[in-house]
Amino acid sequence: MNKTTQIVERVAAGAFHIENIYPIIDGGRFPIKRIVGEPIEIFADLYRDGHEIIAAAIVWRREQDRDWNRAPMALEVNDRWGGSFTPDSIGRYVYAIEAWTDEFATWQHGFELKLKAGQDVTLDALEGAGLMTKAQSGGPEASAVIVKQCEDFLKTGDTQPLLAPELRAAMAEAQSRPDLTRSALLPLMIDRERARNGAWYEMVPRSQSPVPGQHGTFRDCIARLPDVAAMGFDVVYFTPIHPIGVKNRKGKNNSLSAQPGDVGSPYAIGGKEGGHDAIHPELGTMEDFQAFITAAKAVDMEVAIDVAVQCSPDHPWITEHPDWFKRRPDGTMKYAENPPKRYEDIHNPDFTCDDAGSLWNALRDVILFWAEHGVKIFRIDNPHTKPLRFWEWMIHEVQVKHPDALFLAEAFTKPKLMKGLAKLGFSQSYTYFTWRTEKWEIEQYLNELCGYPEREFYRPNFFVNTPDILPFHLQSGEAWMFKARVALAATLSSTYGIYNGFELLEHEPIPGKEEYLNSEKYEIRTRNWDQPGNIKPYIHDLNLARRANKALQQTSNLRFMAVDDVNVIGFVKESVDHSNMVAGAISLSRDVHEVWLPINSQVMVDGERRDIAAVENIITGERYPVEWGGLRVRIDPMRDPAIFFRCLA
Amino acid sequence: MNKTTQIVERVAAGAFHIENIYPIIDGGRFPIKRIVGEPIEIFADLYRDGHEIIAAAIVWRREQDRDWNRAPMALEVNDRWGGSFTPDSIGRYVYAIEAWTDEFATWQHGFELKLKAGQDVTLDALEGAGLMTKAQSGGPEASAVIVKQCEDFLKTGDTQPLLAPELRAAMAEAQSRPDLTRSALLPLMIDRERARNGAWYEMVPRSQSPVPGQHGTFRDCIARLPDVAAMGFDVVYFTPIHPIGVKNRKGKNNSLSAQPGDVGSPYAIGGKEGGHDAIHPELGTMEDFQAFITAAKAVDMEVAIDVAVQCSPDHPWITEHPDWFKRRPDGTMKYAENPPKRYEDIHNPDFTCDDAGSLWNALRDVILFWAEHGVKIFRIDNPHTKPLRFWEWMIHEVQVKHPDALFLAEAFTKPKLMKGLAKLGFSQSYTYFTWRTEKWEIEQYLNELCGYPEREFYRPNFFVNTPDILPFHLQSGEAWMFKARVALAATLSSTYGIYNGFELLEHEPIPGKEEYLNSEKYEIRTRNWDQPGNIKPYIHDLNLARRANKALQQTSNLRFMAVDDVNVIGFVKESVDHSNMVAGAISLSRDVHEVWLPINSQVMVDGERRDIAAVENIITGERYPVEWGGLRVRIDPMRDPAIFFRCLA
Repeated sequence: MNKTTQIVERVAAGAFHIENIYPIIDGGRFPIKRIVGEPIEIFADLYRDGHEIIAAAIVWRREQDRDWNRAPMALEVNDRWGGSFTPDSIGRYVYAIEAWTDEFATWQHGFELKLKAGQDVTLDALEGAGLMTKAQSGGPEASAVIVKQCEDFLKTGDTQPLLAPELRAAMAEAQSRPDLTRSALLPLMIDRERARNGAWYEMVPRSQSPVPGQHGTFRDCIARLPDVAAMGFDVVYFTPIHPIGVKNRKGKNNSLSAQPGDVGSPYAIGGKEGGHDAIHPELGTMEDFQAFITAAKAVDMEVAIDVAVQCSPDHPWITEHPDWFKRRPDGTMKYAENPPKRYEDIHNPDFTCDDAGSLWNALRDVILFWAEHGVKIFRIDNPHTKPLRFWEWMIHEVQVKHPDALFLAEAFTKPKLMKGLAKLGFSQSYTYFTWRTEKWEIEQYLNELCGYPEREFYRPNFFVNTPDILPFHLQSGEAWMFKARVALAATLSSTYGIYNGFELLEHEPIPGKEEYLNSEKYEIRTRNWDQPGNIKPYIHDLNLARRANKALQQTSNLRFMAVDDVNVIGFVKESVDHSNMVAGAISLSRDVHEVWLPINSQVMVDGERRDIAAVENIITGERYPVEWGGLRVRIDPMRDPAIFFRCLA
Repeated sequence: MNKTTQIVERVAAGAFHIENIYPIIDGGRFPIKRIVGEPIEIFADLYRDGHEIIAAAIVWRREQDRDWNRAPMALEVNDRWGGSFTPDSIGRYVYAIEAWTDEFATWQHGFELKLKAGQDVTLDALEGAGLMTKAQSGGPEASAVIVKQCEDFLKTGDTQPLLAPELRAAMAEAQSRPDLTRSALLPLMIDRERARNGAWYEMVPRSQSPVPGQHGTFRDCIARLPDVAAMGFDVVYFTPIHPIGVKNRKGKNNSLSAQPGDVGSPYAIGGKEGGHDAIHPELGTMEDFQAFITAAKAVDMEVAIDVAVQCSPDHPWITEHPDWFKRRPDGTMKYAENPPKRYEDIHNPDFTCDDAGSLWNALRDVILFWAEHGVKIFRIDNPHTKPLRFWEWMIHEVQVKHPDALFLAEAFTKPKLMKGLAKLGFSQSYTYFTWRTEKWEIEQYLNELCGYPEREFYRPNFFVNTPDILPFHLQSGEAWMFKARVALAATLSSTYGIYNGFELLEHEPIPGKEEYLNSEKYEIRTRNWDQPGNIKPYIHDLNLARRANKALQQTSNLRFMAVDDVNVIGFVKESVDHSNMVAGAISLSRDVHEVWLPINSQVMVDGERRDIAAVENIITGERYPVEWGGLRVRIDPMRDPAIFFRCLA
């Protein structure tokens, strides 16, 4: 049947239709993401023709492995099958769904029905024995069962041995599967816990010296670590640490020409001291940087660095690889621009130049260089202005060697492009949270990110501020607003960050803009990190609550409560293992609120669902009974705009 | 960049992400279906990195052609693009979405912004001219525009020629598209009108003789045609017309052994006179059958035949191809069975036998044989018990030669399997309508079939009865119920059918079963086709209304009205071209109803939407004004359980 077979193969994959796989991103084009140790539940519609009894399994393996693991699937209802598996290490995986006919179970079922109907089953029994004989080349254990049951039947003529459940199980294992149909291979990314959960502290190293006007060093940063660790942060993230260009250097407040002594933007990367794999000499040496990583680890923090794919006019690549950059008709090198804006302190490499292969490799090697120097978290600046397939390729290349490498996409752009970056491999993403202030838009945005399929690939990192963004709502400098914003970020999202100075309520803008005045992007700032009025204890309490409550270590488990106040957001989160449930209420306005929190979920105790009987204030430990399916709370934002409870049975 | 490129190709398809294509069936695995002449609207999310201006098109061609047609796409909103195309002939097509960067438009946009900002644009102008020079190998018309504008600029230094819209259009055509990204090829099936719209009359030819007890012939059937045509049917469908086996022939009322003179089941196909490509001698000759086709055509009807893939013990294949059938341990051939039920008058061929290639080809050749004898509609018996990929292959093979061939799947089985058959290529499908009697379940079922994606591939054919099914609700034989059922079938679905005898209110069951007593599946019946009390005039009116109203020639345009009576179904349908809108109300109970029909849609007049001002009874022509957004109607099922209006501005 050669010709027929060929044509059939062209139009049809197999005897089964395997449809409506869940979860799936764009038909399997992009991976779903999970944290190691978490079960992955898979569902699909499976069917073939006829009345045969079928079976199905999930097969899965690491991308680079050859052997498959198998997990059984079971029929749920209406041809919908489900199963789950749990990879025990991080990395990239593929999985597929297999369906096949259980020929023996089908025979056994018909045989039983005929017996019950009192029909002559002599030939049927022989047919069953025939199936068993054909299957005896299966595994030794299965074969033993098969041989025994078959002999019992043949010796005595008693049909009962043919109906034994253990025979059905042995045959399920041993018989051939001629019509086995496999779905397309679907990708899966298993990350470590930090991909989903972490409190970030963005530190500008040049401003960490306690001596006014003096350039901060990694040693100064090491001295700051106890302060940051005491606030309970998990990740300390550095703005770029590389040499800074001199030519066309920017001056204070983003002025086009620098004055003598101006330190320039750390995003104008590259100087005579080197490029993306070098360290700005004023910050110290590679050894100092390594010491910083070690010191951070000692206080349970991990270091993230900033990767900005752009070169100052003094970057070594400008002279070593002039063909990586576009030229203008007069022979000069093209500056970065977004007309009519011009960025004359940087050149963007041309990802489609004739020598793109070596450019791509060089950029990948920069990441590998830092990964080999102990950095495993990379915050990528403006990824949305570089080719999507570059990121997909680069992240894959790096994660093959460093499956623990995490990438945060700093893209503030069109929603679908932001989601596209998350799909193609970024572990985490910046979000619009920074500007979402009304209850309806916060709830709508979180429901979007926690919905399907977004929750399968988009891991939000909620920054309350950044060196580029001092949102209007923070510009009055009121403590309750800073507290409310960090409380929202830290509890709605399992990953969030603050940019240093937030804890000091820094809020002086360039008038009319959402930008910091005298931004340390262009100058050194000296701060009193213990300045009166700071909210460090508040942030500490939040981060401690996050660490103590698994429910807060995930984002997509968020469910909003119906709270009858347009300025109070109420929510519940439950951990995947059901061991922890947190309810929270956060005020978005400065006035006192008294609201009813409908805490009418159930919690898991000893494997059983029970009504919530009481709640315990996460910060103070005070307990309150839950009656009539909820709790009345009073929120005075001047004292604390947020309140969080652990739910108890 | 060879190595890099290779790796990139492995992980990424192109510079663009092309996502969320609509409509699409299972990621493009199965075709969407349309009727020839209908525009096909396609939408997709398209994006790339950066701020470049992009463009997109739908490319499409017949499956067997090489050259592509192109249709432009336009940005709708939020990176969603849309476009449409209209194939002008039936057959199988493929299409894809292409996206690329409009390099010149991007340049022109930036150039304009810089001009407005008063920046020096000398170099930019030269860059634009450079793009134009590069593009001058485009088509002659585009080139002429490009050369002229470029010269105008270069001669005078005036930048206006560079901003001309005609230049942008010429460059859009002429410039290269280095980052063009194409989606996967998606399949499309374009059928003739009859695939979606038709009234079917199922005729059992053995019972068409006017002489009691005498076997009907094709000549008798020809004599019946004026009667059927007068009722307004479009398709006359014959139960199997092939020789019937003698061995194990079934007797009257499905008894296991035939008595002398019993005619047997026409589904026990094959005798000494031949198999699936032969004609039962008692019906006549191939010439008689051809005469029947010709006579049907003369009264605007098309002939459909029944294809049942099963063989009586006397079928020539049993002896010519014994290897196509399974044997039992005692060497006998296996009968069809569904334990504990046995069908000893038929054998099912084994689609996976060693010689399956020739079996598959033979079955395909049966269809091709009849197609070449003028039959283009095939009602397939029990397709759900034969391999899915056989049907997918066979239907494709036949439609390559006969793109006008239509296949109706007679599958009453699990919902997903029924939908799977529709996806893989069946043009139409049987449905559960036959048993849906309550308003809620009729509305729910229709909403399922008219929803997305079902409406893209599932074309229902609503049979009110079949030789196998005399539903309980017809067994009391009340005329209003027969009228209500045929009115529901004929107007909710654009394709529907009755099995002969329905028009005579035949209703005598095997007690306690939904089956006909003395079924003509096993004996000859003689009827008075003009028997008093018949509802032929009622059916005539319905079919006339269907022909006169385009809105009734489609199913998925159905919208139910909120009618405040649990036993009245109200609906509106509008034709694709907006030229016709029909509102209807059908009673499901025998009592008189007075209900409010909220006919508050708008109709299209001279390209403008206008409120419905009046309705016209489709049957009587009476007009009523529409006031307060609706109409009060009185339905007396004893006179007519249904009322239909044409909506007028």
